[in-house]
Amino acid sequence: MPKRAIVTVTTDFGLRDPFVGIMKGVILGLNPEIDLVDLSHQVTPHDILDGAFTLFESYRFFPPDTIHLVVVDPGVGSERRPLLASTPKYTFVAPDNGVLAMMIEREEAVEVRHVTADQYFLKPLSNTFHGRDVFAPVAGWLSRGIAPDKFGEVITDYVRTAPGQPPRPARIADNGVRGAVLKIDNFGNVITNLTLVDVPELVREEPSSFRVVVNGHEITRLVSAYAGGGPGETVAIVGSAGFLELANNLGSAAGSLGASTGMEVFVYLSGLKGSSGHLDQRSALLQ
Amino acid sequence: MPKRAIVTVTTDFGLRDPFVGIMKGVILGLNPEIDLVDLSHQVTPHDILDGAFTLFESYRFFPPDTIHLVVVDPGVGSERRPLLASTPKYTFVAPDNGVLAMMIEREEAVEVRHVTADQYFLKPLSNTFHGRDVFAPVAGWLSRGIAPDKFGEVITDYVRTAPGQPPRPARIADNGVRGAVLKIDNFGNVITNLTLVDVPELVREEPSSFRVVVNGHEITRLVSAYAGGGPGETVAIVGSAGFLELANNLGSAAGSLGASTGMEVFVYLSGLKGSSGHLDQRSALLQ
Amino acid sequence: MPKRAIVTVTTDFGLRDPFVGIMKGVILGLNPEIDLVDLSHQVTPHDILDGAFTLFESYRFFPPDTIHLVVVDPGVGSERRPLLASTPKYTFVAPDNGVLAMMIEREEAVEVRHVTADQYFLKPLSNTFHGRDVFAPVAGWLSRGIAPDKFGEVITDYVRTAPGQPPRPARIADNGVRGAVLKIDNFGNVITNLTLVDVPELVREEPSSFRVVVNGHEITRLVSAYAGGGPGETVAIVGSAGFLELANNLGSAAGSLGASTGMEVFVYLSGLKGSSGHLDQRSALLQ
Repeated sequence: MPKRAIVTVTTDFGLRDPFVGIMKGVILGLNPEIDLVDLSHQVTPHDILDGAFTLFESYRFFPPDTIHLVVVDPGVGSERRPLLASTPKYTFVAPDNGVLAMMIEREEAVEVRHVTADQYFLKPLSNTFHGRDVFAPVAGWLSRGIAPDKFGEVITDYVRTAPGQPPRPARIADNGVRGAVLKIDNFGNVITNLTLVDVPELVREEPSSFRVVVNGHEITRLVSAYAGGGPGETVAIVGSAGFLELANNLGSAAGSLGASTGMEVFVYLSGLKGSSGHLDQRSALLQ
Repeated sequence: MPKRAIVTVTTDFGLRDPFVGIMKGVILGLNPEIDLVDLSHQVTPHDILDGAFTLFESYRFFPPDTIHLVVVDPGVGSERRPLLASTPKYTFVAPDNGVLAMMIEREEAVEVRHVTADQYFLKPLSNTFHGRDVFAPVAGWLSRGIAPDKFGEVITDYVRTAPGQPPRPARIADNGVRGAVLKIDNFGNVITNLTLVDVPELVREEPSSFRVVVNGHEITRLVSAYAGGGPGETVAIVGSAGFLELANNLGSAAGSLGASTGMEVFVYLSGLKGSSGHLDQRSALLQ
Repeated sequence: MPKRAIVTVTTDFGLRDPFVGIMKGVILGLNPEIDLVDLSHQVTPHDILDGAFTLFESYRFFPPDTIHLVVVDPGVGSERRPLLASTPKYTFVAPDNGVLAMMIEREEAVEVRHVTADQYFLKPLSNTFHGRDVFAPVAGWLSRGIAPDKFGEVITDYVRTAPGQPPRPARIADNGVRGAVLKIDNFGNVITNLTLVDVPELVREEPSSFRVVVNGHEITRLVSAYAGGGPGETVAIVGSAGFLELANNLGSAAGSLGASTGMEVFVYLSGLKGSSGHLDQRSALLQ
């Protein structure tokens, strides 16, 4: 018995309308032997960067051969192209608008194809719901074993940055690093784009001097668990996806800092002495 | 190996309470070889029309033999009857309150039964949660192959209109058509009950004269894709379920028009010349 | 063919972030032959009591051998222990913070283990997402048939009450019973911790004298179905999980009463004559 295929689904459709269910109906019509897993359908509407990050922090936790379907598609019905991207482990189906950009930036070998084989689309093709008519059926056929090269030619001129994607973190004067807020999560945690690659000193639980500045507020405490901050205290922490976060134990850091997506974040360090532990975690997060 | 049954689930239970999960537990206890697909659990509470439309725009995208379970049931515990409705392709399980009305109106051959065979219900039967005690177990037994006629007798006096369901669109003076707002979707798109059957001129991308009036606002541009409107512009479009929608590219049309469910919508046309294309799409949407 | 395992998932992660999807990816990587069922991911953030009640009202409706995974875990990364609890029918995986307390209080034979076998954890183990790194993989391995005793030793000093869990209902003067509000559900129904064990007179549809007092408001009508109240009327009803609820037909009882979780609820009765029916329902709810 061949194992069941896994398809993850990420959209900005919300859960009130039945659009996600309709896409699943289309996929199950092509391949009933499938496991459908929702990553999020509450990506901020039309926010490609939010979709890109949602995919980025999730896709590697799925078993090999998982198909990741992402429909955050404000340009539906325009000339933007449907894409199929393959890494050695995964396949991705998404519009060509930058929603795959963060994943592609991390992966070493990604083959990106422009999906043109419209025999795999639903007919008639609507102009308003390519999630149903293009992306879901392509994922369904892929899950049945149709090879990526049947769907279209390899391209290299795909969109390489999500709109609003902050520049990569950079070293600045005074032993500092400048990054940006990527996302506010459901708990009000402020997730930055700063990783251990940018600030390797974060591997130390208590750098001798440490300062994060966001929106005029200064955070000086770096902890290793959310529960490590006092009640109401806003602290810094390296989150589960490897990014520096600002968190408020039992409260909302975003609220207390007045932080929002895209804001600049500065980290200042001094007296760096090199890392002193957590090497397993560090090496994994640097992957 | 027999293929797995598919059951879709639509409710107004929301996602905070575990009621939907409980229904799935009951179904899986009767038939573990099943795929459960959520259409929506955020139907507006007690809004039978919203549930009717959610089902209406979704059910045909599922493979044959799918069972559609709909529990929007403000009359739970009263005398309203549980129904089982069969078309050549699908089976529906729902309360007799009009939530199946839009589907039945479109389908040609629907057999509706009053479910009375209480050996298929959970015991003891509560008065407050027939989703768990009546509808879920009926869907579970159906998925195991129990024939519809085992559940009860055919009836014809079921509820044929959802409460608040607007009258069918009608031609009015001045070459106009009067319809109504059916729903505001998650993107703020205003979905009307006007289809290509009511306004076949919509098949033309640019009718020579076209005017939609909602809540005192006038929309004169008909586009073929959401991205076809300028930023902030409210335009008309035929949506993915075949209904005329008003949409605002990257914004909320409902907000800018002050539109809400049930409001009248008028479409005026002139210089009609017959359709000039999109015939595939048209014929499919007219089905 | 062995039957597929069922794992239910309950968290306070919300549905905007992909954390739940990530946990499912981890589980499917260990066991692709699994059915994953969401109970709720909208447990109030950090509200262990809300998680405890969500599990309590749900778990018994699943077939034997279901694994119930609960991650409401404000103490993640601190010293709080991961638990594995077994009853004759079910297995539970959750943090040791009281989220299993209501279930354990009802069940007669529960064996609780401290999960220490870190060979079953994801490596590297983060301090911020044990749902992904500890609880999901333990559930995945359990579903593959690893016996509970492989995960750690039996303990008895686990947390036995959820924070904020109201005291058990008590008889007070004037033939009254004092309880508390456990939860406000999605329809605005006010669910109390009073059951038929505390107020067996509720089995009678119309006790000769009946009065509930919440927040200075008095409710005197006990009905057997939500539709039994007049429009806008707030009534008392025994809900589907066996708890006394206050409900407002087509409105929000919580809104009209100004009720919130933890508030005291008083029930006064007189002229008790013993129960006169509904015995099936009563006996089941008393289980």
